[in-house]
Amino acid sequence: MENKKLNCLSNLPEPPYYVVVFASKLATENTGYAQAAQRMMELAVKQEGFLGVDSVREGNAGITVSYWKDESSILNWKKQQEHMLAQKAGRSQWYDEYSLHVAKVERSYNFKRDI
Amino acid sequence: MENKKLNCLSNLPEPPYYVVVFASKLATENTGYAQAAQRMMELAVKQEGFLGVDSVREGNAGITVSYWKDESSILNWKKQQEHMLAQKAGRSQWYDEYSLHVAKVERSYNFKRDI
Repeated sequence: MENKKLNCLSNLPEPPYYVVVFASKLATENTGYAQAAQRMMELAVKQEGFLGVDSVREGNAGITVSYWKDESSILNWKKQQEHMLAQKAGRSQWYDEYSLHVAKVERSYNFKRDI
Repeated sequence: MENKKLNCLSNLPEPPYYVVVFASKLATENTGYAQAAQRMMELAVKQEGFLGVDSVREGNAGITVSYWKDESSILNWKKQQEHMLAQKAGRSQWYDEYSLHVAKVERSYNFKRDI
């Protein structure tokens, strides 16, 4: 199965840049989540300083790693109005649990098989 | 489906600590990968400075985020003998593509639903 959302394997600038690691467990009842997640992806790519995203889901567990130019880009996205509503719905409805880590990338490696 | 490998949602220390983000696409032919991945997980948890790991797989795409006390812990793991052999096999056999980001966590948030 090809995962179209794993797309940043080799399209990032040289460090330093920032990552936001978002690891989550969905609640069993999560009506509206999938649509909101897709909408957030559409909005995020339009944000100033957005560099890319890798996202993988396995049952109720998901990890989304987004890549950003700098900290202020991340803060602006955090405060984006529609995103704030989604964050609120996430806590009240969709997620049983999540953790979010904001980190500064110091070094990075890529590998791509020669075909 | 419960993912036993998503286990660090609330068991990490206060920042700063380090994350290693490993995003990968497996080759179609990847004999031996699953067993090696499990073995690496067993070895990693024994490493000095290892804090935890979140790992999710969706078809050929995977994201593994490991958490470490400091950079030297990451370098020691990188140089661990059996791990070096696995890295070599990863490039020669298992992965079509991967990216790895080493980053210093500056802030972190956790959420857990009250039940």
